[in-house]
Amino acid sequence: MPEEIPLLIVRELKSMEAADHGRAFTATLVVRKLQAKTASNGNTYLSVDLGDRSGSFSCTVFGDSPVHESLRGAGEGGVVRVEGRVEFYQGRFSPRLARAAVLDETALAAPGVLDSLVETAPEDAEAMWKEFNDCIEAIRHDELRLTVRGAFEEIGAVFRWVPAAVSMHHAYRHGLLEHTLHMARAARALLPHYPQVDADLALAGILLHDTGKCIEYEGTLATRRSRKGILQGHVVLGYQLTRKHGMKARLDAERLERLEHIILSHQGEPEWGAAVYAATPEAVFVSMVDNLDARLGMVQRALRQAGDGEEFSERLPGLSSALLTRPVPPAR
Amino acid sequence: MPEEIPLLIVRELKSMEAADHGRAFTATLVVRKLQAKTASNGNTYLSVDLGDRSGSFSCTVFGDSPVHESLRGAGEGGVVRVEGRVEFYQGRFSPRLARAAVLDETALAAPGVLDSLVETAPEDAEAMWKEFNDCIEAIRHDELRLTVRGAFEEIGAVFRWVPAAVSMHHAYRHGLLEHTLHMARAARALLPHYPQVDADLALAGILLHDTGKCIEYEGTLATRRSRKGILQGHVVLGYQLTRKHGMKARLDAERLERLEHIILSHQGEPEWGAAVYAATPEAVFVSMVDNLDARLGMVQRALRQAGDGEEFSERLPGLSSALLTRPVPPAR
Amino acid sequence: MPEEIPLLIVRELKSMEAADHGRAFTATLVVRKLQAKTASNGNTYLSVDLGDRSGSFSCTVFGDSPVHESLRGAGEGGVVRVEGRVEFYQGRFSPRLARAAVLDETALAAPGVLDSLVETAPEDAEAMWKEFNDCIEAIRHDELRLTVRGAFEEIGAVFRWVPAAVSMHHAYRHGLLEHTLHMARAARALLPHYPQVDADLALAGILLHDTGKCIEYEGTLATRRSRKGILQGHVVLGYQLTRKHGMKARLDAERLERLEHIILSHQGEPEWGAAVYAATPEAVFVSMVDNLDARLGMVQRALRQAGDGEEFSERLPGLSSALLTRPVPPAR
Amino acid sequence: MPEEIPLLIVRELKSMEAADHGRAFTATLVVRKLQAKTASNGNTYLSVDLGDRSGSFSCTVFGDSPVHESLRGAGEGGVVRVEGRVEFYQGRFSPRLARAAVLDETALAAPGVLDSLVETAPEDAEAMWKEFNDCIEAIRHDELRLTVRGAFEEIGAVFRWVPAAVSMHHAYRHGLLEHTLHMARAARALLPHYPQVDADLALAGILLHDTGKCIEYEGTLATRRSRKGILQGHVVLGYQLTRKHGMKARLDAERLERLEHIILSHQGEPEWGAAVYAATPEAVFVSMVDNLDARLGMVQRALRQAGDGEEFSERLPGLSSALLTRPVPPAR
Amino acid sequence: MPEEIPLLIVRELKSMEAADHGRAFTATLVVRKLQAKTASNGNTYLSVDLGDRSGSFSCTVFGDSPVHESLRGAGEGGVVRVEGRVEFYQGRFSPRLARAAVLDETALAAPGVLDSLVETAPEDAEAMWKEFNDCIEAIRHDELRLTVRGAFEEIGAVFRWVPAAVSMHHAYRHGLLEHTLHMARAARALLPHYPQVDADLALAGILLHDTGKCIEYEGTLATRRSRKGILQGHVVLGYQLTRKHGMKARLDAERLERLEHIILSHQGEPEWGAAVYAATPEAVFVSMVDNLDARLGMVQRALRQAGDGEEFSERLPGLSSALLTRPVPPAR
Amino acid sequence: MPEEIPLLIVRELKSMEAADHGRAFTATLVVRKLQAKTASNGNTYLSVDLGDRSGSFSCTVFGDSPVHESLRGAGEGGVVRVEGRVEFYQGRFSPRLARAAVLDETALAAPGVLDSLVETAPEDAEAMWKEFNDCIEAIRHDELRLTVRGAFEEIGAVFRWVPAAVSMHHAYRHGLLEHTLHMARAARALLPHYPQVDADLALAGILLHDTGKCIEYEGTLATRRSRKGILQGHVVLGYQLTRKHGMKARLDAERLERLEHIILSHQGEPEWGAAVYAATPEAVFVSMVDNLDARLGMVQRALRQAGDGEEFSERLPGLSSALLTRPVPPAR
Repeated sequence: MPEEIPLLIVRELKSMEAADHGRAFTATLVVRKLQAKTASNGNTYLSVDLGDRSGSFSCTVFGDSPVHESLRGAGEGGVVRVEGRVEFYQGRFSPRLARAAVLDETALAAPGVLDSLVETAPEDAEAMWKEFNDCIEAIRHDELRLTVRGAFEEIGAVFRWVPAAVSMHHAYRHGLLEHTLHMARAARALLPHYPQVDADLALAGILLHDTGKCIEYEGTLATRRSRKGILQGHVVLGYQLTRKHGMKARLDAERLERLEHIILSHQGEPEWGAAVYAATPEAVFVSMVDNLDARLGMVQRALRQAGDGEEFSERLPGLSSALLTRPVPPAR
Repeated sequence: MPEEIPLLIVRELKSMEAADHGRAFTATLVVRKLQAKTASNGNTYLSVDLGDRSGSFSCTVFGDSPVHESLRGAGEGGVVRVEGRVEFYQGRFSPRLARAAVLDETALAAPGVLDSLVETAPEDAEAMWKEFNDCIEAIRHDELRLTVRGAFEEIGAVFRWVPAAVSMHHAYRHGLLEHTLHMARAARALLPHYPQVDADLALAGILLHDTGKCIEYEGTLATRRSRKGILQGHVVLGYQLTRKHGMKARLDAERLERLEHIILSHQGEPEWGAAVYAATPEAVFVSMVDNLDARLGMVQRALRQAGDGEEFSERLPGLSSALLTRPVPPAR
Repeated sequence: MPEEIPLLIVRELKSMEAADHGRAFTATLVVRKLQAKTASNGNTYLSVDLGDRSGSFSCTVFGDSPVHESLRGAGEGGVVRVEGRVEFYQGRFSPRLARAAVLDETALAAPGVLDSLVETAPEDAEAMWKEFNDCIEAIRHDELRLTVRGAFEEIGAVFRWVPAAVSMHHAYRHGLLEHTLHMARAARALLPHYPQVDADLALAGILLHDTGKCIEYEGTLATRRSRKGILQGHVVLGYQLTRKHGMKARLDAERLERLEHIILSHQGEPEWGAAVYAATPEAVFVSMVDNLDARLGMVQRALRQAGDGEEFSERLPGLSSALLTRPVPPAR
Repeated sequence: MPEEIPLLIVRELKSMEAADHGRAFTATLVVRKLQAKTASNGNTYLSVDLGDRSGSFSCTVFGDSPVHESLRGAGEGGVVRVEGRVEFYQGRFSPRLARAAVLDETALAAPGVLDSLVETAPEDAEAMWKEFNDCIEAIRHDELRLTVRGAFEEIGAVFRWVPAAVSMHHAYRHGLLEHTLHMARAARALLPHYPQVDADLALAGILLHDTGKCIEYEGTLATRRSRKGILQGHVVLGYQLTRKHGMKARLDAERLERLEHIILSHQGEPEWGAAVYAATPEAVFVSMVDNLDARLGMVQRALRQAGDGEEFSERLPGLSSALLTRPVPPAR
Repeated sequence: MPEEIPLLIVRELKSMEAADHGRAFTATLVVRKLQAKTASNGNTYLSVDLGDRSGSFSCTVFGDSPVHESLRGAGEGGVVRVEGRVEFYQGRFSPRLARAAVLDETALAAPGVLDSLVETAPEDAEAMWKEFNDCIEAIRHDELRLTVRGAFEEIGAVFRWVPAAVSMHHAYRHGLLEHTLHMARAARALLPHYPQVDADLALAGILLHDTGKCIEYEGTLATRRSRKGILQGHVVLGYQLTRKHGMKARLDAERLERLEHIILSHQGEPEWGAAVYAATPEAVFVSMVDNLDARLGMVQRALRQAGDGEEFSERLPGLSSALLTRPVPPAR
Repeated sequence: MPEEIPLLIVRELKSMEAADHGRAFTATLVVRKLQAKTASNGNTYLSVDLGDRSGSFSCTVFGDSPVHESLRGAGEGGVVRVEGRVEFYQGRFSPRLARAAVLDETALAAPGVLDSLVETAPEDAEAMWKEFNDCIEAIRHDELRLTVRGAFEEIGAVFRWVPAAVSMHHAYRHGLLEHTLHMARAARALLPHYPQVDADLALAGILLHDTGKCIEYEGTLATRRSRKGILQGHVVLGYQLTRKHGMKARLDAERLERLEHIILSHQGEPEWGAAVYAATPEAVFVSMVDNLDARLGMVQRALRQAGDGEEFSERLPGLSSALLTRPVPPAR
């Protein structure tokens, strides 16, 4: 593509005015949805949602369009670099697309590409994953440590990029890794003050508590609940995974039952998804640390997104309030 | 024991008046609770709850009491035939116990003995169990049938006598068998009218839905929640049992997932204990039939217990109302 | 109208693209709303909503429009065949209407016409109505049967086409007839298993339980709550109707009171609209069968509407979940 | 009975100490409950609750007791003057009754007798009833006034003494008359400030709004919910009564519907028993005045019962708080 | 501006059709929102919301627009008279603005100007304020009266125009003055009937109860919650103001505590914002009068806005129902 | 008193059996309640509740009793050493009291005395208070530190012994000090991991958050809600105290407002008593740490009270579950 065509993000494209009609642009976009449909005249066409981290738009792509083949080939979750011209129709951004090229793994790995497509945890993912493994190694009880290690070997890379939630807290790429790591940091700081809580069990429980979400959600760049997620829920899925690796690691029955109980009860109240109420010191501890970091995660994200001039964020549903985002002034 | 000493039930013993002071009696009683304690003077004694189906009372049994050995030998859940004299102390029924003999299996099996100790489902347990097995055989899909059969082989006899709940509905001996069988009867009558519901899956789901309760409760004549019941809950326990036997019977993954989903969702709402909302036709069907039979079970029990003269039952918490127990008059 | 102009439904019209601008079409449409308004320049015009089963659109019709007279003559709830050309303005479908002709009773009765205008129960309405009358005749108690028959004679044809609800379950033409009939079928299958429930009273209660909805809703093709519906609610309206016909049929006071109680309590909880909690075996039975068929009605509708390729339905508010709509695979 | 035997109330009798054992007393008591029972030895006896406004106690009366005939003759709700001696048995007040005489109408009408048996509204019942009739006469619309008058003629004297509730507000003899009259006073003071509310309709609605309670409760000195109360509820019962007398008085359909709507909606929220939400100015007004006087009635009663030394009342469930009962000090 | 250009309100402008494209208009509009932004090409522009009482629209104003300076000068809450031509773009009203002139205080005070910009209480504000001061003078207790007077001197003119709420009841200019005055009228009519309620305290409490809202909201023509409103809430803000002026007026500690308690508890339930439950006769009284007038205020507004032909209003969220707005027909 | 008379606690006294009748004992007891009453015969007597940490009992003390003067002199909250003999009357422990001597300050300060009367935090109060003052000194911002110091100087010693709650968590002597200190420890451990939270403000907020409880409760050995507690609530009382000392210490307005906001919002949800939702990073942090330590405080107390033999505690209302109190077995 010629150098002079500006590379724009979706928010910029959608804020164009009449004067921009027909302007050329390029953009790197995820195929968020892709459905083949048949019009009433018998012609087939694609109904496509394209987007990046700043927004998304829908378009209809007929069989004779120059981008038909590329988009169909990219598939849901694929990433394409498109070239087109700005147009609006029926009040919606509806660009005329001239070319589309699927990005391969190498192109995706180029610096900044993924970042432009999805919101990402602010800390470096590699560093977080390294620290996460240190947390696993910090479990002194051998079978417990083996249980945790086994579970994460089965899960694999998906754990490192899934969000911690679809909306609400830590709802972005690497969000689950970040949230779990933050909980582990908080727990390690707190445990010396609560000696009644078995440190190894609590730490293992924290590392494993949300692993079911790696199965509950599916799709790498276009997250949605999977079939297993709808039919079993992440609490039962995480419990099942933990149980499997606990038995494999020959963890004693007493500890395994207590570890499973942490997973089953970490959501706090049955109406929020807990299978049972927390009934061991470790389970109470984990559910409260989960709560604390989830709320503070919402605060951290709102502070990151705060505009310079604004005193308050939008109302945050998870806090039932707007957040004062202006920092405390320095002491005199 | 001499013939002339009347065999009395607890309700009769407790309604005695001053004039009955010192009167001799015999009674067949369950040891509901038995704790060894130490008094402030260093002496040890037993704190014992004794009862039958009509009520219960506490007593303190010192080491020099003639019934000390028998009661200690009977243990919690044991059954004894006691001989004593009516006494009240500190306003409570506090009989002077003279003899106690533990009943063995044969004595317990004598007609009427168990009936006098615990409330029991009105239908004959043997006949219900036979019909229950016919329901298992009615499942046409081979692996499904094997799954169900395997689960009940593991559970064994306990399924036949546990109550369906500690309070609320079908809360009596054989209550779970009765409730599950009534649901199966209702389902088999309804299924022809709801052809969208897979009959084999729905029937298997009904038979298995509450099997976790056989682990959630413990004790034969003195029911209470077990450790597993508190730490996992009957929904997860039943799911685990079903999963184990489904895999053993090589049930296809699709059916197994749907069967597990019925167990996980049968409580209806997460706040009532469901792990997920019902999301298959079979799961919706089973949770609604469960609801229907639970409520009608409360009606049936209130009608059985209705006194001749009373128009309404006491207020039933499960119905949020008293129930009109007088029958509809016959048509003219 | 010329043969070559395609007859389109609203969903097709609204999915047109720029290329379709100016294309001619015909459509059969209900006048869902019709209000005469005065513009700020003193001119009067009609604000009209036109729609069919697949969707609807608004338009403004000035006095000099060629369709002004026909639409005004059709009135709210009237059906017109319109001819026009596709146009969009201000981002909305805003066709240029050239002709409109009101359909008379005969035209409306032509096969497929009503079906294209409103969603309709899948079972044949005539057959359902016939079976419904068989259910009335199945009531053995004479005065009870006369009560039910009297009520349906007063209601007349409206019962056969009203929906069972504005949204939620059985919310389509003939929906109330279908839901009531399905409940009667379920009840007749279940009653032999619950002999404590008086079959005649329960059946009469089911047939009458929602009759108040025939007064609560008004309009044949454009349903909305009537004045009586807002001021009294369908529970009281159905109770009043039942009481009137019970007294006319000289039903004994005992049965009448129990029958009225079924109507007053069938909604289950006061917060869902019940005047009192169910307090007779029959009332408990009817409210549970109502619940069961309402939920399964949502399942049946979602299965009917399921696209071929989709594994799950949209989230169904009445089930708090998406529904797995793909059928259970056949046994090997 | 001899002069020297003190006439005591139940609270005094129950607070007796050991030193009072055997002391003679007389008391005027209501028979609150009376059940004939059969002991396990075949003897029949009466289980009786006797009480006055300050408390109650249970006793068992065998066939050979000197008070057996009198109590059986008095029946539930009857009033007796008993002579006995203080005794305690099994920790409960359990007097030895020597004589009992049923009080006839004349004796009951003697000053102070009823007052000693049940809590009574502080204002004079005759004066309240006279003012209540003035309120009826203050309705200017002829048929509305006739409707209200007709309803109160049918209800008769019961309206003058029923409580407004079993617990919560105005829960004492004449309570409903008092509460309704206070609402009428408040309404007449407020109506000039809310001219959008039709005064006649609002006043008629207030006078009639709780008349269903005259049917919902039964028993004169021992109130409990009647069969009609359980099966229909006071809202529907009051609506039915209003409808009957509105039609008899040939009230126009428009006003009758609005009057019925006031009754059906006066409880405010469906979960508190309203059949529908208030949807006319008059219905909103009546439900809010009902709310206001109910709360202030709780305040008035707590102030009447306040001991001299206490700063706060007990926690009042209807206010979710204790009430500061000490008066505001006078201005300097 | 030339005489012949029509002065239009926003609702009229937005209902224009294609035929009106390019038509000239003038309008008097409030600047509801004004944000300076930077486009991706580095240009700065204003994002502006303009509106009047009938509606509002957004527009983007670049630096070379003829209205750029005037709008920036007017600022948020400023009022401008604009001249422009009707245009629609992307389906939204998007006029081409040619001139804009800021209105000064004198121009704003001209008859009808404010009325065209915001909804205003129907009673005359001057007359209400005069009557309000009479209510202050009607407080006989000197220090109480001084307390109230002091508070209103500090608040100043803002009290006379703030709305009583952002949505729900009395949500318009002068709404708080109107609501407070109506409560005072109602209280003065009711107090003779509830002599247990100290009249002076209750009246002072009513006048002060919502004064915190003068701080909770900010902006004269564009109301939104202030920083103090979000961080403290109107209950605490009103309490603090009352406390300050009570101490300044040397109100005795007993009365001050009771007065503060009225403010702290007037919202009724903690979940609606009350700091504590009402626990004095005066606090119960004030919270109930607040409730009553809030609901009747919704009724009054719905009646004012009722179209001639409509029988019912839209559903009013505060009443959970539509309101029958057609008046009761006159008596024959 | 003679050496041979055993010093017993109330739980031991109440568990006596018939054989202990008449046995001599001494006990150290708090006067929990003391009311002068008049019997129906005109005699005055005291109604007294006496208790220690293990339980309490009521007794009636007439004017001629040998302990009448001592108990009256001790007053509510006083501590007495009584000598008496075991007796039961009416089924209740009702000892014959022979002597009573009021304990003066010196006697109360003797080791173990207070401990026997009320449950006390397990950590040493002096050491906790010293560490608490270190936490105050750890606040680096001068005016913030002065604010906190000022508030605790005004509160004085009461802070060191009030419980953190009447029931639920930390409900024992020194409970508030312990809970606040534990929160401060947890916060200091967590703050390095949440750099977005201003450490000084958060720490000051934690130290002050519950100070209102020192005013909300009254009585040293017999805690109950004070008048101020009922009329204002601890949230507003703590806010007022903080505001006063913030202004005295000339804390800048920005920090003072944020500090007040922490107090006003720390209860989390309005229905749990928060005046507003937490809307600053510090307020979110403090409310979550409060939550965490409150729950873990319940766990710690249940573990302390756990009997040796029991696997689970009683059901703990604050956890909605029983707690597994048996420790995790040591690793092999």
